[in-house]
Amino acid sequence: MKIKSFASIATKYEAIFFDAFGVLKDYGGLIPGIDTTLRMLDEAGKEIFILTNDASRSPQALAARYQEQGVTTITPDKIISSGMLAREYIRYKVKSGAVVYLGTANSAHYLEDLGIQCHSIKDIHLDDADQYNALVLLDEEGFDWNHDLSKTINLLRRKNLPVVVANTDRTYPVSRHQLNIAIGGVANMLEDIIGRRFIRFGKPDAQMFLFAYEHLQQRRTITKNKILMVGDTLHTDILGGNKFGLATALVLSGNTLPDHYKFLINSTGIIPDYVCESAVMEQ
Amino acid sequence: MKIKSFASIATKYEAIFFDAFGVLKDYGGLIPGIDTTLRMLDEAGKEIFILTNDASRSPQALAARYQEQGVTTITPDKIISSGMLAREYIRYKVKSGAVVYLGTANSAHYLEDLGIQCHSIKDIHLDDADQYNALVLLDEEGFDWNHDLSKTINLLRRKNLPVVVANTDRTYPVSRHQLNIAIGGVANMLEDIIGRRFIRFGKPDAQMFLFAYEHLQQRRTITKNKILMVGDTLHTDILGGNKFGLATALVLSGNTLPDHYKFLINSTGIIPDYVCESAVMEQ
Amino acid sequence: MKIKSFASIATKYEAIFFDAFGVLKDYGGLIPGIDTTLRMLDEAGKEIFILTNDASRSPQALAARYQEQGVTTITPDKIISSGMLAREYIRYKVKSGAVVYLGTANSAHYLEDLGIQCHSIKDIHLDDADQYNALVLLDEEGFDWNHDLSKTINLLRRKNLPVVVANTDRTYPVSRHQLNIAIGGVANMLEDIIGRRFIRFGKPDAQMFLFAYEHLQQRRTITKNKILMVGDTLHTDILGGNKFGLATALVLSGNTLPDHYKFLINSTGIIPDYVCESAVMEQ
Amino acid sequence: MKIKSFASIATKYEAIFFDAFGVLKDYGGLIPGIDTTLRMLDEAGKEIFILTNDASRSPQALAARYQEQGVTTITPDKIISSGMLAREYIRYKVKSGAVVYLGTANSAHYLEDLGIQCHSIKDIHLDDADQYNALVLLDEEGFDWNHDLSKTINLLRRKNLPVVVANTDRTYPVSRHQLNIAIGGVANMLEDIIGRRFIRFGKPDAQMFLFAYEHLQQRRTITKNKILMVGDTLHTDILGGNKFGLATALVLSGNTLPDHYKFLINSTGIIPDYVCESAVMEQ
Repeated sequence: MKIKSFASIATKYEAIFFDAFGVLKDYGGLIPGIDTTLRMLDEAGKEIFILTNDASRSPQALAARYQEQGVTTITPDKIISSGMLAREYIRYKVKSGAVVYLGTANSAHYLEDLGIQCHSIKDIHLDDADQYNALVLLDEEGFDWNHDLSKTINLLRRKNLPVVVANTDRTYPVSRHQLNIAIGGVANMLEDIIGRRFIRFGKPDAQMFLFAYEHLQQRRTITKNKILMVGDTLHTDILGGNKFGLATALVLSGNTLPDHYKFLINSTGIIPDYVCESAVMEQ
Repeated sequence: MKIKSFASIATKYEAIFFDAFGVLKDYGGLIPGIDTTLRMLDEAGKEIFILTNDASRSPQALAARYQEQGVTTITPDKIISSGMLAREYIRYKVKSGAVVYLGTANSAHYLEDLGIQCHSIKDIHLDDADQYNALVLLDEEGFDWNHDLSKTINLLRRKNLPVVVANTDRTYPVSRHQLNIAIGGVANMLEDIIGRRFIRFGKPDAQMFLFAYEHLQQRRTITKNKILMVGDTLHTDILGGNKFGLATALVLSGNTLPDHYKFLINSTGIIPDYVCESAVMEQ
Repeated sequence: MKIKSFASIATKYEAIFFDAFGVLKDYGGLIPGIDTTLRMLDEAGKEIFILTNDASRSPQALAARYQEQGVTTITPDKIISSGMLAREYIRYKVKSGAVVYLGTANSAHYLEDLGIQCHSIKDIHLDDADQYNALVLLDEEGFDWNHDLSKTINLLRRKNLPVVVANTDRTYPVSRHQLNIAIGGVANMLEDIIGRRFIRFGKPDAQMFLFAYEHLQQRRTITKNKILMVGDTLHTDILGGNKFGLATALVLSGNTLPDHYKFLINSTGIIPDYVCESAVMEQ
Repeated sequence: MKIKSFASIATKYEAIFFDAFGVLKDYGGLIPGIDTTLRMLDEAGKEIFILTNDASRSPQALAARYQEQGVTTITPDKIISSGMLAREYIRYKVKSGAVVYLGTANSAHYLEDLGIQCHSIKDIHLDDADQYNALVLLDEEGFDWNHDLSKTINLLRRKNLPVVVANTDRTYPVSRHQLNIAIGGVANMLEDIIGRRFIRFGKPDAQMFLFAYEHLQQRRTITKNKILMVGDTLHTDILGGNKFGLATALVLSGNTLPDHYKFLINSTGIIPDYVCESAVMEQ
């Protein structure tokens, strides 16, 4: 599979879905040239959405960061986060009562604007378990793992709650050589211990792509074969995009390194339609 | 969780999605009273769809069986099968070349009406591996497991093909006390051996529900909270319905037995909105 | 499977291996009558060993607890802990350098008496990764999960160390209704995230039974069919005992409740030779 | 990790355990020079055992093949097969009744010399399920997969039998580019479908190494640090040898290719003590 220039590919599609981390930005901030690229795509009339497994901040907060860095094309309505899907679930399926969450107060904004009562795992009493109607895993920060992860297990043993995971990623990078464990990794441990099925939202799940697709159709009718998904990770961005019927481009500016991409495509069986060095278009 | 009558629930919804096996029919044929129930729902103006993890026959062939048994309300356009999703994938993602399949000639109809060349695993030569652009697992019949499952592994070692599984079920019942292994069970073994990710279509995956939802919207605009998913299996029908944001009713006429449903709901954490003895409404 | 009295079974065997938690003691302390039972077995000339997935304390410390509670038959040489197996591994396979551990200073005694340098994960610098030749997971206490679990992942990304898990249990009970997550549960999460194989010691692994068996043979030659393994957990005590060729007795005084044992035996396929209410023999 | 000559390593150990396939032989027959190597080791007074996950033939039949090819040092008592462990299990744990097996008549010899009745899955009637006290998976040949694998599932649904798997390998090579699915791969599918725990014998399990170790001690007392395990597969030979406390040498004449070994050691975390091109010593 030969490496192509992103410019030569992008021109064939009417809408482009971007992963955020490893594609638009990395631990050092914005990837150089991405701001210009996004402006060029916008001027060429391409519809752009960002699909991110990030439920730690609202679309407003996420977009504000891009704006601060001069990327004026990224507005809150362009951002589709896994937290939005978790909120949809709670909206449709939890009619009453309160919700317990793992995460920071920032991440709880996803739930609070539904008008539902939300309590951090660190603040609840297990004797009140009957009051709660769902547990939502939003963010890996905001609670004490040593104490509150066992407390989560014991809450679920007291009451059989639906558990929603708003981020399927197991880790996220904090510098070139260091990762942090993300709430998706913690969720796998809790699910394994309690032996119940959690409800996960985030790439590669179809609902993430469907949500972006529906937002797109509200702006303009574009068929799936005119949409390109651009990502740096085979088993989230590319697998999910392929399964949903989109064209897919793997970029080598993040998780998947130039030396390994052929081996990884072959060993995973997850095959992108294109491979590009990055999502940057030269001026 | 108390058992309620299906009639008292159905009246609250504008559209009802039914699982087929264990809900409308079992190994003995149609569940008694289902034909009348479906006619009553139709007369009451409810939209009805059948969501089935069955890729062994076309919607036309599946509907014809219901018609022969006097269920005139079930026409081919009411049937959403996992085979239709596999066909969509091939339509969008395989532009050229031929496709290899595991299954009967009947199941291959899903692919043939795309105008693409289809070859059974039993007929191909591994030396021609370069000609093929996808492998589709449709049905557990139509080939020799002793020989052709190893042949499938060797095909995938020769060429890195996308693999599509058109039925996620691991077994299906053939009588009160006997099961057969389904292609979904075989797919798990092949995926485990080859170590690559297959693309699976079927409940509980969101795409199955999305496909039915899109078909529904073409007839009438109905929001998710006015749709009820009815099924006999927690981890396909109920999990998938819940995650997609539908109301869900577990019926005890199939896989999930009256003695076990409380234990199973508690141990899996998959919680339906309602439990009913069956989907039959009394006249 | 009918419930039998423990006395009627114990008399048939020359050696008895006991699980500790749920068999000899629970969160409330010693199970009433166990001290008399152990003394009667000792007087009847039975060889007794305790097999425990507990690496938080040395056999000396574990035996001291029993002694304090009046159980004079339990001396340190009767205790086979998973920590002893981890120590054996380090003794045979780590010839030089230092070892990093997750756990308390108490648990590190297993390694320190080998004369090897041991450092807690909380004290090391990742830049020194080259100095370390193994990572040992001993206990879930003694470090900050929020910070040090990600640090563990980053250590393993810096250097490819063998990782030894000295306790395969995922949880342990702290009261009738509450569990804590054990180091075995944490190990599963880390292994899943880093994608490498850890080396696990503890029941049901054969090496745990072998270690007890070898200790037994040093006292007296007894064949496997004259040894009874007594435990409260099917997938550790009973599975491991069966596989090693010992007779097995499930007791209902711990993990496995009287109401559920038939269902659990049937659904897991792990079949003990006997079931008893407890390991207590009436005087 | 640098590649060393096998001769330079072998000289440090008093006993050497060899994997068979990929070390002593491949699909083309004996690896050239192995006969001389084995004779040299024998003359140097090294104790030699062959540890093989092969239950398709008896040690007698396996040794006869080597003898026919001129390897006179390999006698039946040098061969430790996973079939021998399955036989030990049946000997200790199945006191009465008959045993059902999947495999050829050849593989059933492991059970028949216990004096126990053995019936192939293809010959039994499910209505007789009560007569059987164990199910043993010996070999992937000798029965009709299309029919008899579902029959196996239905047998286990009728009666809760202990299931023993006498070969943990998922595939075996039949030529340079072709694999066949082995009974270990089939066992994984059946276990996944029935949801029960099977009892597996074969590398990397400790019991395989223990069995060889016990046979060795009957000839001569040799400590673990004087035994070398030589194999071509990280997750069976090397993982098992390491965990049992033996020194381990990975050879590149089989499963693990010279181009990939560094990557595989790093990505699996299974670290051999040595790497050699092959187990052949130059004269």
